[in-house]
Amino acid sequence: MYRTNNCGELRIEHVGREIVLSGWVQKIRDKGFMMWIDLRDRYGITQLIFDETYTPKELMEKARGCGREFVIKATGTVVERSSKNPNIPTGDIEIKVTELEILNKSEVPPFTIEDETDGGDELRMKYRYLDLRRNPVKKGILLRHKMAQEVRKYLDGQGFVEVETPVLIKSTPEGARDFVVPSRVHPGEFYALPQSPQTFKQLLMVAGYDRYFQIVKCFRDEDLRADRQPEFTQIDCEMAFVEREDILNTFEGLAKHMFKTIKNVEFQGDFPRMSYQKAMELYGSDKPDIRFDMHFNDLTETVKGKNFPVFDSAEFIAGICAKGCGEYTRKQLDELVLFVQKPQIGSKGLVYVKCNEDGTFKSTVDKFYNNDDLKIWAQKMNAAPGDLLLVLAGTKKQTTSALCELRLEMGERLGLRDKNKFCPLWVVDFPLLEWDEESKRFFAMHHPFTSPVKEDIGLFETNPGDIRANAYDFVVNGVEVGGGSIRIHDEKLQSTMFKTLGFTPEEAQAQFGFLLNAFKYGAPPHGGIAFGFDRWTAMFAGNDTIRDVIAFPKNNAAKDVMIDSPATISNEQLKELSIKIDQK
Amino acid sequence: MYRTNNCGELRIEHVGREIVLSGWVQKIRDKGFMMWIDLRDRYGITQLIFDETYTPKELMEKARGCGREFVIKATGTVVERSSKNPNIPTGDIEIKVTELEILNKSEVPPFTIEDETDGGDELRMKYRYLDLRRNPVKKGILLRHKMAQEVRKYLDGQGFVEVETPVLIKSTPEGARDFVVPSRVHPGEFYALPQSPQTFKQLLMVAGYDRYFQIVKCFRDEDLRADRQPEFTQIDCEMAFVEREDILNTFEGLAKHMFKTIKNVEFQGDFPRMSYQKAMELYGSDKPDIRFDMHFNDLTETVKGKNFPVFDSAEFIAGICAKGCGEYTRKQLDELVLFVQKPQIGSKGLVYVKCNEDGTFKSTVDKFYNNDDLKIWAQKMNAAPGDLLLVLAGTKKQTTSALCELRLEMGERLGLRDKNKFCPLWVVDFPLLEWDEESKRFFAMHHPFTSPVKEDIGLFETNPGDIRANAYDFVVNGVEVGGGSIRIHDEKLQSTMFKTLGFTPEEAQAQFGFLLNAFKYGAPPHGGIAFGFDRWTAMFAGNDTIRDVIAFPKNNAAKDVMIDSPATISNEQLKELSIKIDQK
Repeated sequence: MYRTNNCGELRIEHVGREIVLSGWVQKIRDKGFMMWIDLRDRYGITQLIFDETYTPKELMEKARGCGREFVIKATGTVVERSSKNPNIPTGDIEIKVTELEILNKSEVPPFTIEDETDGGDELRMKYRYLDLRRNPVKKGILLRHKMAQEVRKYLDGQGFVEVETPVLIKSTPEGARDFVVPSRVHPGEFYALPQSPQTFKQLLMVAGYDRYFQIVKCFRDEDLRADRQPEFTQIDCEMAFVEREDILNTFEGLAKHMFKTIKNVEFQGDFPRMSYQKAMELYGSDKPDIRFDMHFNDLTETVKGKNFPVFDSAEFIAGICAKGCGEYTRKQLDELVLFVQKPQIGSKGLVYVKCNEDGTFKSTVDKFYNNDDLKIWAQKMNAAPGDLLLVLAGTKKQTTSALCELRLEMGERLGLRDKNKFCPLWVVDFPLLEWDEESKRFFAMHHPFTSPVKEDIGLFETNPGDIRANAYDFVVNGVEVGGGSIRIHDEKLQSTMFKTLGFTPEEAQAQFGFLLNAFKYGAPPHGGIAFGFDRWTAMFAGNDTIRDVIAFPKNNAAKDVMIDSPATISNEQLKELSIKIDQK
Repeated sequence: MYRTNNCGELRIEHVGREIVLSGWVQKIRDKGFMMWIDLRDRYGITQLIFDETYTPKELMEKARGCGREFVIKATGTVVERSSKNPNIPTGDIEIKVTELEILNKSEVPPFTIEDETDGGDELRMKYRYLDLRRNPVKKGILLRHKMAQEVRKYLDGQGFVEVETPVLIKSTPEGARDFVVPSRVHPGEFYALPQSPQTFKQLLMVAGYDRYFQIVKCFRDEDLRADRQPEFTQIDCEMAFVEREDILNTFEGLAKHMFKTIKNVEFQGDFPRMSYQKAMELYGSDKPDIRFDMHFNDLTETVKGKNFPVFDSAEFIAGICAKGCGEYTRKQLDELVLFVQKPQIGSKGLVYVKCNEDGTFKSTVDKFYNNDDLKIWAQKMNAAPGDLLLVLAGTKKQTTSALCELRLEMGERLGLRDKNKFCPLWVVDFPLLEWDEESKRFFAMHHPFTSPVKEDIGLFETNPGDIRANAYDFVVNGVEVGGGSIRIHDEKLQSTMFKTLGFTPEEAQAQFGFLLNAFKYGAPPHGGIAFGFDRWTAMFAGNDTIRDVIAFPKNNAAKDVMIDSPATISNEQLKELSIKIDQK
């Protein structure tokens, strides 16, 4: 028997009990005549004590022979500590050890197994099994477990059926790049790994399953950005015989359940909703962080015609009002200018206006705008004395995105983006289609199965770019946690959609024939949503990246540096699969 | 709003209520002046009634326009039926329809959506979304959902942490064939899909997670047999600081929980255990069906030396006693002879002995064995008058396997294999290694990480073939539902194991370096088990194959005939992935 208890559960009421613990040596303190070992397992840390006044010499030496991360088994008695440690739950007691067994030795780990470690990113990735021992990582993994259980508990309770959809499916040209799997049995043919179970969950609706969910791995062969992984996990859901309202209500229920059970946060009333158009107008983002307002003010019409060439030549001029920042120093203001000029933001410059306490204004464009002009700006932006106006100009697209970043930066600086405050939001009525200048065709903004808003269906003939999708995103604190739509369930409408996306009927049939075919046999109205499970977990964990809520993540080059994958395979394997490496 | 209720829940107490139902048209009966539509959804069937005495003509015509599998929405009033149907839960009521909306039409389905359908296997696979509407398939899918929830509920309650292990891993030469995934970012390199998360769950133990589980997709590129799928699902579990006893107890707990919650079957006391050796001796199988005994009797020494060349030249002679089959007709006996002569059984012939009620015997070998001889056989086999002895001879291997099949066949014929009776069994102490004559090397019977039984470790030097593994299988009714082992956690022992399997240290390092490395940093003693989730579900569903408890299975050629996968991919894709098709 390796243990009677774990290292996190012994308390003062257990004093006198004979116990056995197993775990890892976290720390050894050796005073010569006395020694302490902090023994760690998943559940906590318990202190072992050795004292030459009663510990046999042999046992004392054995304890001394232990090193960090050794796996040991200790038998002994729970005793009260003379100097208690109020920082850990087991801090009132320690174990007077009578027997010690070294279950396994450890080399000195390549980085310290502490909350703050000395190991760099790549080193910790290589020894991920050691990094997983650290509290901050462990917390994320345990949180993820708890969240998965709560998601399923809630959805099961709501009559959702968990169905596993296949992983070996078929490559489709639409969307991101697929990972493919050569078939040995069918030379020259390939499976593809799913980017999402989209078509399968729709088939389940056709099959009558009515409420489906799955926590499921999805795959995208993209060039990785900071917060992307080639394999990621979705909470994938679909419902039949529903309208948008039913779906939003159902999954608002799920979100509230998660906030309550995981974060102990309760929401009164419904989550706010905002149209895509409004979100872009007010915050320059389809996933606005509404923990704070500081919304955009369109100044294009207001500021032109004063001979300031930058404004006069700009397509779009807009600003935000940073409350109480009128006293910003030159250094702080210079930082903001540098911020908007960063290549990834890409603005040429920043116009700012300080609203002085005496009602006057001080701006970087005093040469072109007098006090009365600036007063109009201030009025338009609802500014009060002591506020700071930040104005950007340029093309609509670039200015919008830059001002969005600047707003978030100001929110950060003003402490308005508290990780423990949660502001959920439904963003609705996305555009159905996006025009791509390069390929001169429309792409589906969500995916080709998204239903247009009913009133807009006529626009397919006249102005497809204006069609609103019956789609919605679930946004929390500026993070897109989930998204979905009502789907097309009508074969004809689906064909129109494919046509609008530039598919010939033959191409549509070749790629999605099974779905179009299924729609011929009684497809019910349906819709659904998918949540980014990694991202949701990371947000609840308070992490900025998803990496630490994934047990074995890949690095930015899509490599698992621990197992050294991807790797070459044998010539026999290649031959069996009827493929050759293209040396180029 | 599409519905106020589902099609399975209305009862006599709802009479008078105004309701809305949506679903599929299961059946239409048209008497001219009256019409009934059976409306079906996931939850059941409700009868709609139309009667020209009160139904407007227009509505009557609309109802008449519906066909099988149309999706309709019906508004109306719950009324009591005049002639009730006791066979369905909603049989006391019907819906007097006031409004009808056809939500979607349906072409005539290619096979009937009935419990017994007229569709063949391939047709039903091609239209899987229609087959999934049929009750027998739906039951399996819903059962699978329920089992998944119960598995997680139990394991979560026992402190197990669900951790997702990666799907894009690395190919290893040991075991079955891997599916591989070419890397675009790293030309010439490949990921592999996991045959099981074995090494990752062991790394989680090294990482201190102590109790892990996951319901997880696994992949094997094998030539498919009847009950295999290229992707299948495992309940994968691992524990640290445990001995075999801890694992068997924990998962016996899980199994009992599943039997109780899913099948309402309760077991008193512990599940029986049997050594591999005993199982082979008594039943010729490492997964014996112990719903009935009919064990093997070794007659090799008993029957030789009577000038019967078949026996005298045989390596192994053994028989079973079929209770009460002494009256089998010539036709029945001929069937048994033909059975053992089938190519997949492969016996040359079958010797049988009828134990007559008068104490005499009648056999196919009366020429060589007199009544006294046969009496000795009967005594050895514990036969009583009225029994039938069935004896096979040949090589040990072939005879054992043929007699095992014959035993199961007799069990079937005697009705001893009741699907509603469950006889679980732990088979323990498997051999660690299997000798392969062709490649002249040992293979791991379980996998290379399985720990030998402690007492047998010395045999690595002298007789590796005799080493017993600390491994166990969970067998129910002759089906291997799960299997696992205590793992090696010592780097040196793991190296010895690799060496015995013919790996050079360099090969071992190249393939499993990350695991050997991990073992250097404090690996705890650990072990685990994995259950075949598809198979377990199929057994609880009473299905013979796993196919119908998988929503979208592949056929025996590893093809998804519904989506037509695998399929060719574009030349651009191949080029991006730096691979070419090897035309041969």
